[in-house]
Amino acid sequence: MTKIWQKGYSINEQVERYAAAQNSLLDNRLIRHDVWGSLAHAIMLNQIGILEDEELQSLKKGLREVLELEKAGKFVIQPSDEDVHTSIENYLTQTIGTAGKNIHTARSRNDQVLVDMRLYSKEQLTQTSKKLFSLCTTLLNFAEEHMQTPMPGYTHMQRGMLSSVGLWAASFAEALLDDERLLSATYEINDQSPLGSAAGYGVPLPIDRQLVSDLLGFARVQNNVIYAQNARGKIEAAIVQALTQIMLDLSKMAQDLLLFTTAEYGFFQVAQEVCTGSSIMPQKRNLDIMELVRARAQTMLAHQQHILGIVCGLPSGFNMDYQETKRPLLEALDLAQESIDICSLVISKVTVNTGRLLAACTFELFATDRAYEMVTHDHMPFRDAYRIVGKEVTAQLDQLLPLPTESQEQLIERLKARKHLGAPGNPGLEQARQRLAQAQENWQQHATTFTTAIQQLVGTSQIAILEEE
Amino acid sequence: MTKIWQKGYSINEQVERYAAAQNSLLDNRLIRHDVWGSLAHAIMLNQIGILEDEELQSLKKGLREVLELEKAGKFVIQPSDEDVHTSIENYLTQTIGTAGKNIHTARSRNDQVLVDMRLYSKEQLTQTSKKLFSLCTTLLNFAEEHMQTPMPGYTHMQRGMLSSVGLWAASFAEALLDDERLLSATYEINDQSPLGSAAGYGVPLPIDRQLVSDLLGFARVQNNVIYAQNARGKIEAAIVQALTQIMLDLSKMAQDLLLFTTAEYGFFQVAQEVCTGSSIMPQKRNLDIMELVRARAQTMLAHQQHILGIVCGLPSGFNMDYQETKRPLLEALDLAQESIDICSLVISKVTVNTGRLLAACTFELFATDRAYEMVTHDHMPFRDAYRIVGKEVTAQLDQLLPLPTESQEQLIERLKARKHLGAPGNPGLEQARQRLAQAQENWQQHATTFTTAIQQLVGTSQIAILEEE
Amino acid sequence: MTKIWQKGYSINEQVERYAAAQNSLLDNRLIRHDVWGSLAHAIMLNQIGILEDEELQSLKKGLREVLELEKAGKFVIQPSDEDVHTSIENYLTQTIGTAGKNIHTARSRNDQVLVDMRLYSKEQLTQTSKKLFSLCTTLLNFAEEHMQTPMPGYTHMQRGMLSSVGLWAASFAEALLDDERLLSATYEINDQSPLGSAAGYGVPLPIDRQLVSDLLGFARVQNNVIYAQNARGKIEAAIVQALTQIMLDLSKMAQDLLLFTTAEYGFFQVAQEVCTGSSIMPQKRNLDIMELVRARAQTMLAHQQHILGIVCGLPSGFNMDYQETKRPLLEALDLAQESIDICSLVISKVTVNTGRLLAACTFELFATDRAYEMVTHDHMPFRDAYRIVGKEVTAQLDQLLPLPTESQEQLIERLKARKHLGAPGNPGLEQARQRLAQAQENWQQHATTFTTAIQQLVGTSQIAILEEE
Amino acid sequence: MTKIWQKGYSINEQVERYAAAQNSLLDNRLIRHDVWGSLAHAIMLNQIGILEDEELQSLKKGLREVLELEKAGKFVIQPSDEDVHTSIENYLTQTIGTAGKNIHTARSRNDQVLVDMRLYSKEQLTQTSKKLFSLCTTLLNFAEEHMQTPMPGYTHMQRGMLSSVGLWAASFAEALLDDERLLSATYEINDQSPLGSAAGYGVPLPIDRQLVSDLLGFARVQNNVIYAQNARGKIEAAIVQALTQIMLDLSKMAQDLLLFTTAEYGFFQVAQEVCTGSSIMPQKRNLDIMELVRARAQTMLAHQQHILGIVCGLPSGFNMDYQETKRPLLEALDLAQESIDICSLVISKVTVNTGRLLAACTFELFATDRAYEMVTHDHMPFRDAYRIVGKEVTAQLDQLLPLPTESQEQLIERLKARKHLGAPGNPGLEQARQRLAQAQENWQQHATTFTTAIQQLVGTSQIAILEEE
Repeated sequence: MTKIWQKGYSINEQVERYAAAQNSLLDNRLIRHDVWGSLAHAIMLNQIGILEDEELQSLKKGLREVLELEKAGKFVIQPSDEDVHTSIENYLTQTIGTAGKNIHTARSRNDQVLVDMRLYSKEQLTQTSKKLFSLCTTLLNFAEEHMQTPMPGYTHMQRGMLSSVGLWAASFAEALLDDERLLSATYEINDQSPLGSAAGYGVPLPIDRQLVSDLLGFARVQNNVIYAQNARGKIEAAIVQALTQIMLDLSKMAQDLLLFTTAEYGFFQVAQEVCTGSSIMPQKRNLDIMELVRARAQTMLAHQQHILGIVCGLPSGFNMDYQETKRPLLEALDLAQESIDICSLVISKVTVNTGRLLAACTFELFATDRAYEMVTHDHMPFRDAYRIVGKEVTAQLDQLLPLPTESQEQLIERLKARKHLGAPGNPGLEQARQRLAQAQENWQQHATTFTTAIQQLVGTSQIAILEEE
Repeated sequence: MTKIWQKGYSINEQVERYAAAQNSLLDNRLIRHDVWGSLAHAIMLNQIGILEDEELQSLKKGLREVLELEKAGKFVIQPSDEDVHTSIENYLTQTIGTAGKNIHTARSRNDQVLVDMRLYSKEQLTQTSKKLFSLCTTLLNFAEEHMQTPMPGYTHMQRGMLSSVGLWAASFAEALLDDERLLSATYEINDQSPLGSAAGYGVPLPIDRQLVSDLLGFARVQNNVIYAQNARGKIEAAIVQALTQIMLDLSKMAQDLLLFTTAEYGFFQVAQEVCTGSSIMPQKRNLDIMELVRARAQTMLAHQQHILGIVCGLPSGFNMDYQETKRPLLEALDLAQESIDICSLVISKVTVNTGRLLAACTFELFATDRAYEMVTHDHMPFRDAYRIVGKEVTAQLDQLLPLPTESQEQLIERLKARKHLGAPGNPGLEQARQRLAQAQENWQQHATTFTTAIQQLVGTSQIAILEEE
Repeated sequence: MTKIWQKGYSINEQVERYAAAQNSLLDNRLIRHDVWGSLAHAIMLNQIGILEDEELQSLKKGLREVLELEKAGKFVIQPSDEDVHTSIENYLTQTIGTAGKNIHTARSRNDQVLVDMRLYSKEQLTQTSKKLFSLCTTLLNFAEEHMQTPMPGYTHMQRGMLSSVGLWAASFAEALLDDERLLSATYEINDQSPLGSAAGYGVPLPIDRQLVSDLLGFARVQNNVIYAQNARGKIEAAIVQALTQIMLDLSKMAQDLLLFTTAEYGFFQVAQEVCTGSSIMPQKRNLDIMELVRARAQTMLAHQQHILGIVCGLPSGFNMDYQETKRPLLEALDLAQESIDICSLVISKVTVNTGRLLAACTFELFATDRAYEMVTHDHMPFRDAYRIVGKEVTAQLDQLLPLPTESQEQLIERLKARKHLGAPGNPGLEQARQRLAQAQENWQQHATTFTTAIQQLVGTSQIAILEEE
Repeated sequence: MTKIWQKGYSINEQVERYAAAQNSLLDNRLIRHDVWGSLAHAIMLNQIGILEDEELQSLKKGLREVLELEKAGKFVIQPSDEDVHTSIENYLTQTIGTAGKNIHTARSRNDQVLVDMRLYSKEQLTQTSKKLFSLCTTLLNFAEEHMQTPMPGYTHMQRGMLSSVGLWAASFAEALLDDERLLSATYEINDQSPLGSAAGYGVPLPIDRQLVSDLLGFARVQNNVIYAQNARGKIEAAIVQALTQIMLDLSKMAQDLLLFTTAEYGFFQVAQEVCTGSSIMPQKRNLDIMELVRARAQTMLAHQQHILGIVCGLPSGFNMDYQETKRPLLEALDLAQESIDICSLVISKVTVNTGRLLAACTFELFATDRAYEMVTHDHMPFRDAYRIVGKEVTAQLDQLLPLPTESQEQLIERLKARKHLGAPGNPGLEQARQRLAQAQENWQQHATTFTTAIQQLVGTSQIAILEEE
């Protein structure tokens, strides 16, 4: 199909393949968003007198057809089309004629792709937040159930002090709640309408950028037209930076689960249906899926580096390099969502092996407790008590004999006695649930603003992706 | 000096050097913050009856001495001390005896270093925001001055459409104002008190974590004690991620300035006093400093990768790996501040060469304008007008003759005619100044809360770093 | 289809999708190599008496069928098959029965995937070297043609001293020849047979690893079975590190071409057929393709970081994380080859605009020459001469008047007078061509060893990929 | 002190600090190498008649004084000097007058810093190789001692098949021997003389680049003068890429040691003198040092990314950005050497806890052995045997009872029976020792060439760094 910028010569095929092959494939995910942007743009062009009423009507019809075709899997972007923008303009020109040739007045593919990415990101960030909240709930429930299950607390991978399975699980919920704040900040940065920046220098036409922004449900216009362009890649990077924070937490959870399910630790078992086997060793049940979460946290870091590396040091104005930020962003958004879901699944399949946990709560976990007793009962200075206990305990450890443990009841008493904020006996689950509820409400408001605007624009309750789950 | 954990054997020197040499050096920057944390901790220990009133008094005296010594450059941490925490405990034990041996009751170096990093980061983020606001002001003033100076707008490094020097400068101010929002979000994440998490599992003592948090001016307690530890590196990464966004903008500004000051562009000159020369070529005046900003944006990316790489996939609980996140964070905070300052300086030293700019505004910048005239006056469909103009313009370009330009007056008229939001004729500088003022006010509130608490804690107006500028 | 490790339960679908969806897709590229490895393994099992002669014959037949099916595009790996190894074992079991159930004796998918990746990499590195040599030739020819075309030599993006277009082009050829050495070193590291390491601990069977290595044309056996497994990701990283070096050179070439084709420099034009246009600005001819090379050099850095990030800090023995190194390696090998080809194409489409080059060779390029004249003729110390010339030249530059230039003849004389090794008058193209020829010969030897072995193994001249170009 | 390019104005102090503060500090490590380069350059200038014999003599004297001063710690580079090159030229001009003003004829700081970095890297790579060989020897000796100590072999961090402590240790030696090949390739790329490339475009003087190269002991001249400059950062990156490979291996060793020394595994103990303690928990003996190796492998990745990020996409010719590659290279070379040494130390302090190892060799490690017995004795197809054994073993595992083990003698028999290349019973230590000896010889030849040249140049046996260890 003809490229919209062609003026009588053919492009080298090798160039076309190098430039657009991957991009045209990715753009199949942006058809819906491109249509939304075009609808808003067309309405505005009509309002300022550039498009006739009839042209607007035929454009609306044509664009809604694209939505129908896409739904039916029949609107597919070809590499020769370069991108979704060209595909749709070509479709409109072919089906409705002149109005199709006019839709691109006062805009550029540069601001089109910007608006597509913003709308897509709004959708996907909303989905991500939902999955994140679901994982939080799973973790808090698991935590509640196991708040009195003792577990060694490790530092340097060595046994340190007494902890509990519940406290461990709740720690991830709090981490994810902090991530939500960073995710929220990127949502806000992304929630600006770039349309009207055109190729980056605006247009010599009296366009109404605020109207377009409102029609699309954006919180505000991204004002300076050069900045709107320069923000390409930058906002993508901000989103991936926030997703990276989530993956950091999941990678830690994965690493813990991998350790806790080894033969050596044996604290947890995970249902066989989420494990895989070996082609050679008949006995194996591997928790591959957590190794993959661990590895894919690195994938997220690579996506982040990828986008930042591309953007860093580019001169102002659109540069083709920006196209290359699309793939890592789309993949990062998928990856975060899939990984959160997998972690929810695995946590729901964990069985806790209390026997092994109790056996692991050996006496040295209480060396600090003993030093504190000497401080509080005997009024010995802490550092002196520390040294005395230190010598005793290490002497016993050096004997390499089986180490003393305590009964489950004693351990539970100890857990309960740790009552200060955030300690095993006072984990603050209720407070975490309140933060969670508040965060959910904030995101629901974003979602409502967004879906209401798009539904009005499209004229139906089209935007399934935000509805379905 | 003795390590506080030593129990009768000596550590291998090579190990000591590998482990602590760099860390003890860096810790010289954390003395002040470590004292603040210790003061708050001691007051709390006294309130819950673990420290006698006299012990508290002597600890206060000893800790204030440390502040004095540090101010005088006389409190220096030795590698054999491992870290600032050990240095200060050793100092206290030597100078005030038993109370010194008691200060470490109910805490660990793990939560100490956490609180030091949080306090240091609060200070430095506040400084960073001030410098960022100052650069915004410089840019907006420069933009205002040059709003009617025409400049080619580039896409793909090729001349695209008409722009202005002012619009270019203002675009960076808006970018930095978006960065401020991300910086703010990380400030908030960082503004949690980790004290009382001890080694990561709390303590079997009735400590009052809220009191400590309030004494130090934190917005809230970081609740779950395991999460408090797991947040090490994570919050550092969040801060550096926000700083990376700033460096992205500065790297773009640097790259633009390097292009615009080449012999070939010649748009800007920069005062000789900020340029450097060559050892061999007598004529050279190089804008090294902007090349360094461009390169150091990559340094910031490396810091970010460094921290994330260390943290990703670590199991729960303190791991020594976390120590290694200190240096990249401290360097990142320095780098951002120095780079912002250098950019403010350079912008203030730029002279605009209007003659070269006018000569560069050649006719093809108006090809789109001409197509729009055919659309609005002749009611020709845009895509048809585009193709007609395209052929005309490329035919003329292919002649390789000098290209027509317009007069300064004509160009200014054209700039003024671009009136929609964010366009050269409507850059929204006033709106940007308002966003700036609002942001400054928010940060001022943070700063006031913080400094008020610390001044009360220390008993004097100690915290110079937040005052001086 | 059944997984080969299944023992009576079903795997969760979400897990299956997260684990294997992408991997099974990628494995479609490894069918051929997996068959080769299986052929060698089967021959060896027969030699040591584990497979009957008949079993070997039916395996050979079955495996050759897989090769035929793949050629015809009819052997496609399904996600439910997990990977190429399972697909082929399942195919064999279904079509030839018992022998299929025996092929996996004394091996694991772990060493199978290792050998597949090594064979694939050998193929692709060979292809990469060919493309690299072709680009070198293009560059050296271009250099020869333009050895007397003057060009300013830049430092700090400012005009420095006289250079030539030819010298510029030849510099990239020499860079690529150094890259070849690094590529060669990684070829050597990769040229080790891992088969027989099984799951990483060998097998309690008297297998003949040397025989398998010889049958597959490897230079040697990778001895230690644990190391064979631990090298997963490590060798992949080494390969991508070498490819990164190539992309560094191409990114520099791209950046130069982008600068030299701006309106401001105007040194080069590139044929319209390798340029693209704008959807809004009718005049644009953008060298997108070089912007993409610049951006994709960053993609290569991200691939490198991706692999290294995954591998770094993993414990010994196979970890599922390794699976995730497959995609970045395959993509990196594609990317390097496509990018080299694109650069060859673009260099072949460059037209040099001598007029603009001569006009850019302004007088300050010869400031150093003048200082040297004062040194050699007037016996003035260099640093004194430098200062005198420096003042003169900057005084003239400060007048902002058009700068003096020299005639083409004078400039060519100056180029010729720079006669020392590697200078414009003595570029050493012949020496570079000799290095190139030598390198080509070395790689040809590798290729011959490899293809001869595989052809013998397969019994036909199957391995088209090494033949076709 | 005056900068050598100053022509009558002062540079802004803030600029000076931003530009040179760190660089001048780092340059204190390059004094020696800068002198060597200057000696060779001066001899050459004399040979081609630019320097008088007397000038050469006074330069030699002055330069040797610099060497003496440096040895005595009395030649320190000030930030106001910018760099080592300026410091030395200033020193020469002040002490010997005119000859000092002439030393810079026909060179630039650009090729000076290139040669300094090459010489420094040759030195440090040689040192690195020595340390690497020493670690190999330590590992091979440890391996030999423990070849019959059984150990579970893990995949997916789950028990897989039987392995041995010796095989584990030897696997790292083989990895390091592969690293040596990559290190060697970078040594070769680095072993080219850039002197005479001047600012990147050569000089209009008949300099003899081959002579300078020979005097400095380089293997060859780096021919194309533009490429010599463009290789800045590129060669640095190649070196760090090779060092990264080493750190990958050390990070794996560190991770293994951290696991094997947990309470849960308990396979190894490490002498207390290389462990550290906790400030709060009296019992702790943490293997911090291995956590730091694990973390610092990430530091190496960050150094690599840092250099590559800076270099990627820069235009041809010297750019100030290159200065920023100096620090990550110097730090990377230090880090690799220190980390190798620490690993040698730790391996030498490991005590193997055979009891725990034997107890961990539970029956499921032999599930594959049992399947193979059914294949070889009962002629059952492998996949059928696999399924039968699989069901039996998992049934037993599901009972969660203590698992059967074998006697040490039985296990040793099993180890011995694994006789194929690289298996526990045939680890190939002798072959590894031979590879090691060969590699050592190659590096010794490099070292001899280098030191001989430098000693002749300096006139004494100056270059202690290559001698001392």
